[in-house]
Amino acid sequence: MPITANDPKRKSWLEVPEKSDFPIQNIPFGVFLTKENVVTVGTRIGDFAIDLGALQQLHYFDGIELTDDMFMQDTLNDFISDGKKTWRLVRNRIADIFDATNPVLRDNPKQREIIIFNIEDVEMQLPVLIGDYTDFYSSKEHATNVGKMFRDPDNALLPNWLHLPVAYHGRSSTIVPSGIPVHRPLGQMLPKGEKEPVFGSSRSVDFELETAFITTDANIMGEAIPAHEAEDYIFGMVLLNDWSARDLQKWEYVPLGPFLAKNFASSISPWIVTMDALEPFRTKGPKQDPAPFPYLQTKGKKAFDIRLEAYIKTSNQEENLVTKTNFKYLYWSMTQQLAHHTSNGCRVNSGDMMGSGTISGPTPDSYGSMLELTWGGKNPLTMKDGTTRKFIEDNDTVIFRGYCKNNEIRIGFGEVSSQLLPPYIRK
Amino acid sequence: MPITANDPKRKSWLEVPEKSDFPIQNIPFGVFLTKENVVTVGTRIGDFAIDLGALQQLHYFDGIELTDDMFMQDTLNDFISDGKKTWRLVRNRIADIFDATNPVLRDNPKQREIIIFNIEDVEMQLPVLIGDYTDFYSSKEHATNVGKMFRDPDNALLPNWLHLPVAYHGRSSTIVPSGIPVHRPLGQMLPKGEKEPVFGSSRSVDFELETAFITTDANIMGEAIPAHEAEDYIFGMVLLNDWSARDLQKWEYVPLGPFLAKNFASSISPWIVTMDALEPFRTKGPKQDPAPFPYLQTKGKKAFDIRLEAYIKTSNQEENLVTKTNFKYLYWSMTQQLAHHTSNGCRVNSGDMMGSGTISGPTPDSYGSMLELTWGGKNPLTMKDGTTRKFIEDNDTVIFRGYCKNNEIRIGFGEVSSQLLPPYIRK
Repeated sequence: MPITANDPKRKSWLEVPEKSDFPIQNIPFGVFLTKENVVTVGTRIGDFAIDLGALQQLHYFDGIELTDDMFMQDTLNDFISDGKKTWRLVRNRIADIFDATNPVLRDNPKQREIIIFNIEDVEMQLPVLIGDYTDFYSSKEHATNVGKMFRDPDNALLPNWLHLPVAYHGRSSTIVPSGIPVHRPLGQMLPKGEKEPVFGSSRSVDFELETAFITTDANIMGEAIPAHEAEDYIFGMVLLNDWSARDLQKWEYVPLGPFLAKNFASSISPWIVTMDALEPFRTKGPKQDPAPFPYLQTKGKKAFDIRLEAYIKTSNQEENLVTKTNFKYLYWSMTQQLAHHTSNGCRVNSGDMMGSGTISGPTPDSYGSMLELTWGGKNPLTMKDGTTRKFIEDNDTVIFRGYCKNNEIRIGFGEVSSQLLPPYIRK
Repeated sequence: MPITANDPKRKSWLEVPEKSDFPIQNIPFGVFLTKENVVTVGTRIGDFAIDLGALQQLHYFDGIELTDDMFMQDTLNDFISDGKKTWRLVRNRIADIFDATNPVLRDNPKQREIIIFNIEDVEMQLPVLIGDYTDFYSSKEHATNVGKMFRDPDNALLPNWLHLPVAYHGRSSTIVPSGIPVHRPLGQMLPKGEKEPVFGSSRSVDFELETAFITTDANIMGEAIPAHEAEDYIFGMVLLNDWSARDLQKWEYVPLGPFLAKNFASSISPWIVTMDALEPFRTKGPKQDPAPFPYLQTKGKKAFDIRLEAYIKTSNQEENLVTKTNFKYLYWSMTQQLAHHTSNGCRVNSGDMMGSGTISGPTPDSYGSMLELTWGGKNPLTMKDGTTRKFIEDNDTVIFRGYCKNNEIRIGFGEVSSQLLPPYIRK
């Protein structure tokens, strides 16, 4: 089935600002709350949020097989469960409804009023109920930087790294959408040079610049998904800030991996950009040497050219660009990650989220965490207001933005923005 | 509110076989499917499954504040969310309904027929929708054994171990109830003495003898649960077999912990035994030295005397007892685990599951895994049929049983039993 929604020549009768991440070629999916306290599944064009539940009730999806309440829900899980064919049909239909040449909704002000909201009048929610959250560690540059800092500079990558996409399980309960502030965590840490740990506020709260993909039901327990099929089970992507407390992490992570250093919060952008929308931005990933095992081998372009930026907004409200990187630098593709994840028969469900791991590029200004950008705090970054940062300070807001661009269109993720608050005081 | 359900003198008008794990003093909670394909929340007395949905509809819970469909659900999450007071009221009421001296239901054969099922006529389901699954590593003996085998015999425990209950996140999607078979996983491993990994069937599939506790909503994001409050948020316990592929684990686990070596399956016993039912079996845990940080300090008896056994059933259907251990050996208590887990503000929800980690006792016949029982495969165990086991073989069934016993009563978990099948072949 052709992805007619991607036609770069199409224009919408809804106004789309220049450089918007959300032209009619994007059509991402999300969940929002209206001022009338209604939660609904929606999409976005320009600066308008569109209520898909209302569209369905008004018969705009007639002819597509959907359960009656498919979009009048507080998560996208059921829609995602319906599979790739349905996603494509719905996205194509939305493009048609909002096409500049289609008068049906355009010329019906009464219906427009109940379907279309100003983006500032809705509150974005978590788009899916995330059953399981897995975080990979798939940037070779990031793994190398961390290995150099904490282990052996001459053997920075551990022996398994080039053979499999290393990953660990994260915590679903603390994944929050953009806009929700996060408290600086308390925890145990071992001060430098000391032999006894202390308990207190983390002194090195960091961001990790990541993307994540959302899956559909992929398999039954026991069944592996072949790499050449894996893409069919990926619904779309979001930006992910995998908040990390480096001092807690260093003390706790042996031998079972990061735990409290990570599970206090993970922030995501609220609009899931579909793989269909990202299709024009396929590109080749890095050469893989040694050749991966057959179960990890794929053909064709499996990387995507997604430009990523991280900003720190300081108390004077000025944004400081601290890094620019690209999703295409990742060594292991999402296809390989999903094939690996299921190679042992691990079940993957609709609404599971899989993070890329910190995405660092080849140059120091393209690293994806403060840990790397300041090289463990040795080279603090100077902000426009003259203050310096080794890590994130209380009341700083960390903002990630991501978008794809070619000569014809720009498809973006919007942003994930979250403020770091001082430690929580219990009332 | 007194836990009247625990009265050791109480007898039920339902027959309870001698040595049953489910006298009227237990009253665990679970979810079952009847032959009529109805899923309901239930309890168990003797060898009878009791439909709590039917009891509620017939007004047996009148006077207790419950939503109308509290028990006509396919999980216990909503009931657990209602909190400790409700759990206790309902359990006390059930004890009263089935008390030998109470004729109301006893003498109503029509109602008995729709409320009470033979345990063999129902199919036990997962009792809760498990949002997040955390596995601790809280047996000092187990951590020491593993450290001796894989690291340094003279410094077996890592520096953090005595200061915090080490843990990692597991995978919820592959947690299954007793009775569901499990496939031997495929994966990467590094054969001994080789430099290059291979991909194939795991050759060292192991059980881990654990218990797990199920939580209720404990906090909002950012908020820590003080150790002295933590018990209020623990609903009850199950037996847990945290299946592990040792060869996959050894190759993949650095630096982010176990992943595919664990997430192919975790099996649990289907009846959640409440903390109220376990109350008579409180005991002191091991002395903790060094003294834990204040946020991990508790008063009183926080361990429980729960006897645990693991069996391997071979192809001739004979059960071989391979270990006997006890929950009370655990160094870190559940209270400390939950206080630690939330010390950084990590949100804990109704239906989250937290595993104890492998429970090993002080003597070699009380170790909680084949890895330890055979000391890395060096000392295979001999089965009654003359075959030997280094790890679990295809078609073996692993069975855990657990119970508490004093002079008056026995409160048990029943069992978690699951067969290991050969690797899955995709149709």
